[in-house]
Amino acid sequence: MSELRQQLVEAIRILAGAGFIDHSGHGSVRRDAESFYINSGASVRGALTEDDIVTIDLQGELLEGAARPPLEFHIHSEIYRVRPDVRAVLHLHPQWSTLLTMTGAKYRPVYAQGTLLGDVPVLDSPLSVNTKVMGEKLASTLGDGRAVLLKSHGAVTVGAYLLEAFALAAYLEENAHRQYMAMQIGDPYVFSEVEQHACREHLWSASLFRKTWDHYRSKL
Amino acid sequence: MSELRQQLVEAIRILAGAGFIDHSGHGSVRRDAESFYINSGASVRGALTEDDIVTIDLQGELLEGAARPPLEFHIHSEIYRVRPDVRAVLHLHPQWSTLLTMTGAKYRPVYAQGTLLGDVPVLDSPLSVNTKVMGEKLASTLGDGRAVLLKSHGAVTVGAYLLEAFALAAYLEENAHRQYMAMQIGDPYVFSEVEQHACREHLWSASLFRKTWDHYRSKL
Amino acid sequence: MSELRQQLVEAIRILAGAGFIDHSGHGSVRRDAESFYINSGASVRGALTEDDIVTIDLQGELLEGAARPPLEFHIHSEIYRVRPDVRAVLHLHPQWSTLLTMTGAKYRPVYAQGTLLGDVPVLDSPLSVNTKVMGEKLASTLGDGRAVLLKSHGAVTVGAYLLEAFALAAYLEENAHRQYMAMQIGDPYVFSEVEQHACREHLWSASLFRKTWDHYRSKL
Amino acid sequence: MSELRQQLVEAIRILAGAGFIDHSGHGSVRRDAESFYINSGASVRGALTEDDIVTIDLQGELLEGAARPPLEFHIHSEIYRVRPDVRAVLHLHPQWSTLLTMTGAKYRPVYAQGTLLGDVPVLDSPLSVNTKVMGEKLASTLGDGRAVLLKSHGAVTVGAYLLEAFALAAYLEENAHRQYMAMQIGDPYVFSEVEQHACREHLWSASLFRKTWDHYRSKL
Repeated sequence: MSELRQQLVEAIRILAGAGFIDHSGHGSVRRDAESFYINSGASVRGALTEDDIVTIDLQGELLEGAARPPLEFHIHSEIYRVRPDVRAVLHLHPQWSTLLTMTGAKYRPVYAQGTLLGDVPVLDSPLSVNTKVMGEKLASTLGDGRAVLLKSHGAVTVGAYLLEAFALAAYLEENAHRQYMAMQIGDPYVFSEVEQHACREHLWSASLFRKTWDHYRSKL
Repeated sequence: MSELRQQLVEAIRILAGAGFIDHSGHGSVRRDAESFYINSGASVRGALTEDDIVTIDLQGELLEGAARPPLEFHIHSEIYRVRPDVRAVLHLHPQWSTLLTMTGAKYRPVYAQGTLLGDVPVLDSPLSVNTKVMGEKLASTLGDGRAVLLKSHGAVTVGAYLLEAFALAAYLEENAHRQYMAMQIGDPYVFSEVEQHACREHLWSASLFRKTWDHYRSKL
Repeated sequence: MSELRQQLVEAIRILAGAGFIDHSGHGSVRRDAESFYINSGASVRGALTEDDIVTIDLQGELLEGAARPPLEFHIHSEIYRVRPDVRAVLHLHPQWSTLLTMTGAKYRPVYAQGTLLGDVPVLDSPLSVNTKVMGEKLASTLGDGRAVLLKSHGAVTVGAYLLEAFALAAYLEENAHRQYMAMQIGDPYVFSEVEQHACREHLWSASLFRKTWDHYRSKL
Repeated sequence: MSELRQQLVEAIRILAGAGFIDHSGHGSVRRDAESFYINSGASVRGALTEDDIVTIDLQGELLEGAARPPLEFHIHSEIYRVRPDVRAVLHLHPQWSTLLTMTGAKYRPVYAQGTLLGDVPVLDSPLSVNTKVMGEKLASTLGDGRAVLLKSHGAVTVGAYLLEAFALAAYLEENAHRQYMAMQIGDPYVFSEVEQHACREHLWSASLFRKTWDHYRSKL
């Protein structure tokens, strides 16, 4: 269990170093059907330690640790409630993905790894997801997908394990970055259905996710 | 008193590290009704020490320290004169906020924390605020607000204490950054009055300002 | 031989540091008519060591080393097969060159060193070059050129020796960067045929390639 | 004399660190009416030492040192020949200033320090200034000014002493950066003649140039 928490600490530090989360943003890993690990609301993301990780249940009640969970813990609890396949959730404030939502531009796969996200729906509210109702709305918008964007606010990725959610977060933002940049000089080429399918067949693998993790970690 | 000065030193170093101030720019903290601490004009912002902080009165007369105050001390003195609620003033040269003023684009809340600034007026002169008359004009443009932009020049934020002015500076620039970037690919969504109100209710807190400070400090 | 491998390690680390390759991307140096050195598929590019270099033949069979070559080794093998003059191949994922291909903008020489690339054709598929057929198509698109772009994917440069391929990679991306940036505010000036010729006469030299290498290495 | 050379070394390292010069670019300081110090052509700009400085006369003949001067020494010699007031010359490859020349956009004072450059003419050739004739043409384009841009190539600033030329280089590029960025979202406000005059009266001072130098040095 300590290993999961330690990896969560590392993920959040890497995401802070990469600028995918800022002074807020949070990540969680499922402990069991009814509880999960998450960094505390007050924790300094770029200097996180295992002491900043708390364990809470799906109602946000503190099971382990002394600090308070983030006010937006509902993002995590409501997804865990309806998605038994999900064991890791990341809530990011990534600049490029968010710029797309600010102007109503839809996320499009313009880069091989970006096809791994599938369709990326948008939650149509810029407000904090700090109530159960908002959390349910977010989980419903996500559906059985891998990522959801929050208008003018941020993004959420989920995975069967932490490295999967991490790699998807990296690909989401990298794809959004390329899409945004290309939009400034023209219309970016969108991968065809056949190409998207080929990329997913070829790229979806634990070893690629691990390599992506290692790459970002090497830049810390 | 030394503690206030030490925090002021840290604030200016963090702002220099973040690129919010460059070879000039200054910050002050009120000492009492008639005097305040401020970094000297010649000080190297990114390598500031407590020896670079001087104490001056509202006429710019040196009360403590050996170095000269910045020529634009009027920004601080004229605001302190008419705003007894203000205990900290920051004068920044932030790139994104300034780009908006260069083209006449109005600051709009496009990001949750950006709503905390309220209306942000613009001083319609690109010249240095190095006379009492210019300082009065700036203070008058600020009114009872939290921030004012200086056309093609920079920005000023104020706070009831230093961390508040610091966090507002960070949010001002972050919001301007997003607004500028989104303007390149479309029209950024502007928070509705209801959303702005909800954000202010939810976000205005000393703990968020402290977290913002800690986040920026961790990147130094 | 160890010297060639060591230089290859250094090249890939520099390219990773400069952001020209990311968690994937690879470089190779020819060993002889039938084999070459290349970094393994799983290697962490920014932290590469000589142990990450393997030797393979033109069919991708491992001759030396324990790790697997990258799936896209066909880029290298098919070029070595038809281009006896080529002794080094780099496959990059450079952002600016790729943005041009995403929008169909043709690479144009807009900067002195950028003329050294000559015409830069584009492979019209965003898919991974992970089969012999795709490798042949890539080598055929390259022809007798010095560089080829891969639509929405990346770039390949070749050289008579590693430092030449490295310098060409740097110039390709630097030229693409300038071209992209200038396109945002107007139409960049394209060097005339006479100017292109003068630049090539003047600039093509091992000493310039070495200086470029030294410059990038000094930034690591 | 060693002090002048040491300061020149420091200037070039700071300029390389700031990205104003890349693998080429050079700076010089006048020794007397007929000779000057300059970094050698092969020197690695970001890791320069005093051994990389050579002394040459206005014909490019080596007077002191072992390495060869840069091929573009004519930039320096032809300016020194006709401008006895100039004691320092910097040849930069700065990205923002160069982007303006690539698209034919004229340099405009859009920022207080940017007014200190005065009119900035453009040499209408992207080719290397590697002959006496080209050097004469450059010096003639500069006239009695403080800076000249080289189309799609770079910039030259001059000063009565090195820190002046350095500060002007920084202001030139900073102004060009702001002008370029503002052009992406509108028309940047250009300082009026009265405002330009006020800025020059107020800002032109050795102490500001020193502060600018100290600021950039602190970022190395």
